[in-house]
Formats: sequence, C-alpha cells, structure tokens
Amino acid sequence: MRKPVIGVMGGGESASTEDCRLAYRLGALIAAEGWVLLNGGRNAGIMDASARGARDGGGLTVGILPGADTEQASRYIDVAIVTNMGGARNVINVLSSDIVVAMPGKAGTISEIALALKYKKPVILLNFDVRALFQACAGETLLHYVQSVEEAIGKIKELLGAGKLHIKQGCPKR
Amino acid sequence: MRKPVIGVMGGGESASTEDCRLAYRLGALIAAEGWVLLNGGRNAGIMDASARGARDGGGLTVGILPGADTEQASRYIDVAIVTNMGGARNVINVLSSDIVVAMPGKAGTISEIALALKYKKPVILLNFDVRALFQACAGETLLHYVQSVEEAIGKIKELLGAGKLHIKQGCPKR
Amino acid sequence: MRKPVIGVMGGGESASTEDCRLAYRLGALIAAEGWVLLNGGRNAGIMDASARGARDGGGLTVGILPGADTEQASRYIDVAIVTNMGGARNVINVLSSDIVVAMPGKAGTISEIALALKYKKPVILLNFDVRALFQACAGETLLHYVQSVEEAIGKIKELLGAGKLHIKQGCPKR
Amino acid sequence: MRKPVIGVMGGGESASTEDCRLAYRLGALIAAEGWVLLNGGRNAGIMDASARGARDGGGLTVGILPGADTEQASRYIDVAIVTNMGGARNVINVLSSDIVVAMPGKAGTISEIALALKYKKPVILLNFDVRALFQACAGETLLHYVQSVEEAIGKIKELLGAGKLHIKQGCPKR
Repeated sequence: MRKPVIGVMGGGESASTEDCRLAYRLGALIAAEGWVLLNGGRNAGIMDASARGARDGGGLTVGILPGADTEQASRYIDVAIVTNMGGARNVINVLSSDIVVAMPGKAGTISEIALALKYKKPVILLNFDVRALFQACAGETLLHYVQSVEEAIGKIKELLGAGKLHIKQGCPKR
Repeated sequence: MRKPVIGVMGGGESASTEDCRLAYRLGALIAAEGWVLLNGGRNAGIMDASARGARDGGGLTVGILPGADTEQASRYIDVAIVTNMGGARNVINVLSSDIVVAMPGKAGTISEIALALKYKKPVILLNFDVRALFQACAGETLLHYVQSVEEAIGKIKELLGAGKLHIKQGCPKR
Repeated sequence: MRKPVIGVMGGGESASTEDCRLAYRLGALIAAEGWVLLNGGRNAGIMDASARGARDGGGLTVGILPGADTEQASRYIDVAIVTNMGGARNVINVLSSDIVVAMPGKAGTISEIALALKYKKPVILLNFDVRALFQACAGETLLHYVQSVEEAIGKIKELLGAGKLHIKQGCPKR
Repeated sequence: MRKPVIGVMGGGESASTEDCRLAYRLGALIAAEGWVLLNGGRNAGIMDASARGARDGGGLTVGILPGADTEQASRYIDVAIVTNMGGARNVINVLSSDIVVAMPGKAGTISEIALALKYKKPVILLNFDVRALFQACAGETLLHYVQSVEEAIGKIKELLGAGKLHIKQGCPKR
C-alpha cells in the first residue's frame, strides 16, 4: 500500500517570507501524517521551504526537477527525479500527486493548477484564491479554497477519506 | 528565414459554435498573411476550426498531438507531430509558437497561457479575458486582450514588427 | 490526406563528410517524391545535411529541436518544433515519422532506432548495420538494411505501398 | 546528502524467470547497501522483481511510470512517479539514476542504455552484452560488463567511490 503523495506547488524565487514560513509548517504537518511530500524540487521558495519542513518532520520528500541534473535540487529533497523537461515537468508534479496544494505563485504555479484540473486531481488553494479563473472549468468538486495550514490538512484528510482520488479517466483526451 | 508561427489555443469539445466560427476566420487570416498556424492538432473545437480556416486560406497547418498516433488529428493538419505526452505537449505548443493567441477554453487552454508567460511568449487573449488571473505574473508587455479577429491580426503584426520575439532567456529556471 | 513523413536520423557533430553527402542526396530524393522530411532539427551533421537536401529539392522540412528555442535550428528547417526536452524529443522524432531512416550515428541515433522499434515503426538502416543488436527485439518485419540512397528510397516506396504503417498499437505499454 | 540512486533496467513481460530471479537478488543487495532502487515501475519482469527484492531488503523503491496513473505500478514500488509520457520516461529513468544497471531486455532497455550513454551515465551490463553495439559511442569509461549480481554490486561501489558521477555536462546538446 503506497503512502498518499501530497504535492505542494507555489512560487520559487518570488515566494514571500511569510508564504515560505507557511510552506514549512505545511510540509511538517504532511510528514507528521505519514504522507509523502512532492514538489518541484528546486532550492527556492515554496519548494525548498516545504521540503525542509517535511524533512524536519521526519517525512519523505520527492522533488521533480526541471533541469538535466540535481544541481538546483533543494538539500531537503530525499528522492530527486531529474526530468530535463523544464516546465513540462509540471505535468509530472500533478500526475504524481494524489492531492495538490497550491500556494501563491506565478505562471508556473497557475499552470500546475490548470494541469491538475485537466487531469481531474483535487486542488487545495492555500491563500491563493484563483477560483474565479477556473470557474468555467474547475468542477466544484475539484477546487477547494482554504486560509490556513490546519484547514489544508483537514481538507486533505477529508479528500483522502472520501476516496475521491482514482483517476482512471486521468487522460480523457488521449 | 522561417515563417512566423502563430499558435492558436482554445477549447476542444467545449468550444462554442461562435468561437469555432471566429477560429476559422482567424486561421484564414493567419494563412493570408503567410504565417504558419500551429495548434494542438485534434479534430475538435478551436483546433479543428482554426486548422480548417488556415487550410482553406492556403496556409500551412501544424498540429502537436497529445496521443501516440495521428488518429485524433484534424483532417486539416498538414504536419502532425505525435508526442504521446498528453498535456505535457502544451509546453511544446507554446515554445514552438512565436506568438500565442488564446481563445475561450478550459483548464488546458489556461495551462497554455500560463506556460507561454512562463517562457516569455507574447499571448493575445481573443474574447478570453483572464488578465486578472495573471496580473501578478504576466508582465504587461506579454499579455494582450483583443475583442475581434481583425484586432488580433493587427496585434500580431505589431508584435512581429517590434521584433520582441527572441527568447534567449526562454528557460530561466533551467 | 497528409503527406508521408520520412524521419532521417543520424550523427550530429560526429557525422562524416561522406555520410553528410549521402544525407543530402537522401533529403533531395525524399523531397522529389513529395514526402515530408523530419529530423532532429539541429544545424549539424545528418540533420543539417538532410534538411538542406530536402530544401534544395523543394520539399518541406520539419525539425524537432531538443532545446528551449530555435537557436540551434538548421537554417534549412521550415517548421521548427521546440520541445525543450533534450533526448526525450527522440521519441517525438520517431512517433511523428511514418518510416525512420537511420544513418551512422552514436548513442542518440541508437536510442532512436530502439524507440522506433518499441513503437512498431519500420526502420531502414542506411550503411549503419546494427541489426545484430536488435535481433532479439526487432521483429524482422520492422528492421531493414540498405547500402545506398536509391535502395532506401525503393524500400520506403515498398513500405508505403504495403500500407504496413498503422500503429494503433503504437503504445502497447500504456 | 541524498542516497545514491541505482537504476535497474531490463525486460518487462519478456524477462525470463532466471533474469527475474537475478533482478530480485540485485534489488535486495542494492537495498542492503542503503542505496535507492529506481526502475520503470511497472508490475512486470525486471521492474517488478528488482522492486520486490529491494522492498524485501528494506530499501526504498522508486518507479517512473509510463502511463497516466498508477494502475500498472508494481506493488513493491514506494514512490510512483506518473509521467504519462510512455517511452519518453526512459530518459527520466537514466537521468534520475547515478548508475544504471541494464539486464537483458528488448528495444526499451536498449534505448535506456543508449540514452544513459548520451547523458554520460555509467552503465553496468549484467549478462546483457551489447558492448559491440556501442563501441563507436560508449566511451570505455562509461560501459561496464559483469556476469554476476555480486560483480555488479562491486562495480557500483567502485564507481561510487571513484566519484565519477557528476554530470554537469549532462545535456551537451542543449
């Protein structure tokens, strides 16, 4: 039985100190639940902070790297996946996560939310309210907005419990 | 000297009859200018309509397909690129376009707008006003909103003329 | 009806002058037949030479580029597909070709032959006899060895005529 | 400090019982050394057997899956990376491994050996002697042939010790 994988997306160099602080706590609580933390793997912003939190919490951290080697990897990543695919690795980030948590970010983070919805993955927006953008396509059942780390963890538990997570139809347009 | 490549993104099965009508005219005018039309290649919605318009206009049409063969390709695609990468091919759609025109769509189209901005590609929003979503990250110089096909063509000419199109820094996070 | 797409693979910087001369003639004859030439798109070796031959022959040339922009593209490529996926674009090279012709190359070319066979694409080996390597997996019906450009063109015609080219089962392991 | 990642490649459905037995032992010894086992992740052949061995040995197992979900994943995979990229995931297999061990396989395995060499990764051929094929391109320093699991483990230790593993130039053609 594989452990649930929680993807945490958000800004890199652009992330605020406060958002990184929240990402650290989110990572620590994900680890405390025994879940695997997955993110974009780089040593910047939400990626580095959430991995550090999960590492300090004794959890397993997986980073999906955009580059051709591990040079840009956060030191808090246990399993570094080297894709050499740049932004195309964002698809792998969401497909490899059972649930995606999106924190404030820029175009890359928005692309991950969009791709998660395209592939029918539940997305929890933590202090990053882009619900309006996706009203047309989200499907109310996939997009969730929360305003605290604790609320995010509670929502993840609810979604894992609900077992809404199978994605047989994950790739409808193939 | 390669011809300019204009990427046209937008809804597949979800596209409205009116949007498909506009996509057809957009494709025809792109062909009339001697530009190459590039899109997601499937036989649905904006993809099929814009390719049909460009074909009828005597232009060259390129489709970047998500699947493992050409079965889902629009009959109006001249060059079918088979990626077998599903939504990851959206990155190829935008990287292979000099300018991206985004018409109304769902999560896939929004991911293409986000990825285009991530890679510093100019994006023209045709009757698809998601500017608010991207205010944080777009950079005013990249995101343009127009309300008619003619306006879109005018904006493309302006951008091509301005020669703002080089993307040496196309992949800043590598 | 899309035109047949003939993929020409082979060495880049490592290609010999003689192999580049043959690649030029192969490209020219592919164009003369009205087929589309597809290759890896870079301005080196077999890629540059085959594209130049096809261009001089009045044909259409498609290049699947490994990088994030068109900087490395051969000047003889008409349609440049920008993948930003490095060697992963080799899969796109073979999936987008109806028939693959492999000329002498190194690891990249061998990976393309292997991937073509994996996806059930016919491969014509032109002066590059690696049949022994693939005896275990090739399937005699897929791997062909020829020793001249004319023989290669004849084999392509035979294969196109035989209509052995459908790959519904193109992706058996999905 | 991340643990070394040892990639084990080889046949899926085509693998022999004896090769699967060896793959199981190889996985177990990799786990005993405290290294991470990485493979193609499917529930077949060398992939399933090596993951089962590493799991029984108390190690961590990572699978890079070709499909759009985890349906085909081996039950012995701890971390399932979902790529939805089919054979293009073979590039990720080798880039994410510090050292690649290749056991008997077909076209997919040969493509992984070729891609590993392209990206300057050391490859240990275990009872799969394709050295002749790669003579032109391998670089003697990258390709190693062994005839027992113990010999493979010894070679891995030697290579890890030699610290020949950095791949700054991992992507020479970008």
